[in-house]
Amino acid sequence: MAKKTKIFSGVIAPLITPFGDDGAPDPERFTEHGQWLMRNGCTGLAPFGTTSEANSLGLEERMELLEELVDAGIDPAKLMPGTGMCALTDAITLTQHAVELECGGCLMLPPFYYKGVSEEGLYRYFSEVIEAVGDDRLKVYLYHIPPVAQVGFTLSLIGRLKKAYPETVVGLKDSSGDWSNTKSILDAYPDLEIFPGSEAFLLDGLRAGSAGTISASANINAAALFDVYKNWQTSDADALQTKIGGVRKVVQSLNMIPFIKAIVAHYRKDPTWARLRPPFVELPQADVAKAIGILEAEHGFRMKF
Amino acid sequence: MAKKTKIFSGVIAPLITPFGDDGAPDPERFTEHGQWLMRNGCTGLAPFGTTSEANSLGLEERMELLEELVDAGIDPAKLMPGTGMCALTDAITLTQHAVELECGGCLMLPPFYYKGVSEEGLYRYFSEVIEAVGDDRLKVYLYHIPPVAQVGFTLSLIGRLKKAYPETVVGLKDSSGDWSNTKSILDAYPDLEIFPGSEAFLLDGLRAGSAGTISASANINAAALFDVYKNWQTSDADALQTKIGGVRKVVQSLNMIPFIKAIVAHYRKDPTWARLRPPFVELPQADVAKAIGILEAEHGFRMKF
Repeated sequence: MAKKTKIFSGVIAPLITPFGDDGAPDPERFTEHGQWLMRNGCTGLAPFGTTSEANSLGLEERMELLEELVDAGIDPAKLMPGTGMCALTDAITLTQHAVELECGGCLMLPPFYYKGVSEEGLYRYFSEVIEAVGDDRLKVYLYHIPPVAQVGFTLSLIGRLKKAYPETVVGLKDSSGDWSNTKSILDAYPDLEIFPGSEAFLLDGLRAGSAGTISASANINAAALFDVYKNWQTSDADALQTKIGGVRKVVQSLNMIPFIKAIVAHYRKDPTWARLRPPFVELPQADVAKAIGILEAEHGFRMKF
Repeated sequence: MAKKTKIFSGVIAPLITPFGDDGAPDPERFTEHGQWLMRNGCTGLAPFGTTSEANSLGLEERMELLEELVDAGIDPAKLMPGTGMCALTDAITLTQHAVELECGGCLMLPPFYYKGVSEEGLYRYFSEVIEAVGDDRLKVYLYHIPPVAQVGFTLSLIGRLKKAYPETVVGLKDSSGDWSNTKSILDAYPDLEIFPGSEAFLLDGLRAGSAGTISASANINAAALFDVYKNWQTSDADALQTKIGGVRKVVQSLNMIPFIKAIVAHYRKDPTWARLRPPFVELPQADVAKAIGILEAEHGFRMKF
């Protein structure tokens, strides 16, 4: 059977969210970084992912920031905002808003407060969002991140949603960190657009039919990730994958979200970028300096603005 | 040292939230049940707790429902709405709103999406909410429910918040389900108003200095819980505690939130009450009927409307 044309593919960044002096999101820095990423390796942006501190943002803040990205000229077809919320009502509001802005897709967490909920309950949640939005333009990417959300997607739930809404439920981001889980989804549903949530599985994923990656590191290392994506069928592929693996290991050596913001702050010479909203806190400056030293000395890493 | 007069004490119900045919919260049933509880054993109400399916409600829905309770004539001093949210901005909005309505307290979850966050990050979250609301009328009850929220309160975090905001951080609900944890908080901070999240610890708690209980069962068995509270210093206390323990055991034999709604639906002869918002689903009717049969036959349970 002929593969469908993919809606999203390549390297997608869960865009980090800058906060100004007043603690409010800073739309100027936000859109500037988004535009820079789209010129430097990213094929799409997933604002309001885990790395974006999305769950520390209010509904209005998210909607305003999304509008800023579109107003700044970023093609909404390349945007896959996070719209999954604990509350059905909020998820409908955000998803509707993203569809109205013509966003290419929505990356949807399951409702994550209540634990141990049934497959039927999760199915109903997604079903109700999809029916309430009621728009053929809606393309849902399920967001599986059990280490954080705790609530996740079984193969059976994915299959049920896909079967009920074949034109709407089109993809999945797998941030389980477990390649065997990603592989089992790829095997079961080869026509889904599957994005491992870590570039550690970028090459393995592409070889197994995945669509690319949606990874925190794409905020700082998108061009190198894109090199793997572009060249995965060449003899350079393994060496390119090894290279991004080395950078990732250093990035993971500290708390990733604060560290990624600190890296951007460092190379942009703009300490504002290092700010986080509670419950996150900034890393000790010495730890950041040391890790950036390792990135540069051992991995030839550098961001050029 | 003389004990401070308690702001809240006794039996507080995390008021269940009814949903109408259209899936929207039903303010009429909501306020009616709240009023009924206040006449039948409850000394206060904690709308928008875990049992209230609060995390399945949108911000606007919560604020409207809270206004309905006050408009219906329930003394706002007896209300302790849940106002803790993942997003700082949302928590500030809800907390401010509750204070403006003169609610006696706010029951605050920590931000619960991100896991493994630092004490400093959680401290800052509460500190920023308290400073942003900036109102002496605000009384915060910390909501510790690690089996669901995963993120919780250490003794050290409680102590830090209490020290920084002695007139604001006045209590805690402990839904850890672990009596030794409740006891350690009671021992460390005897001037906090501590509410075990289960009436299983009601009598032990009162003997150790707790303020009462905030428990799901208060939605259906408040009068019997109040009997324990009222008589804890009498020779009847242990027998009364044993009685509520028997009922609780049956209530816990099924998924508690759907079962409590099903019990209310049964005795009110109003199936609407049994409705839940995803990710919850209704229990099989046969399971409900069987468990209610046990409640009546073995525990003399009955709700009279």
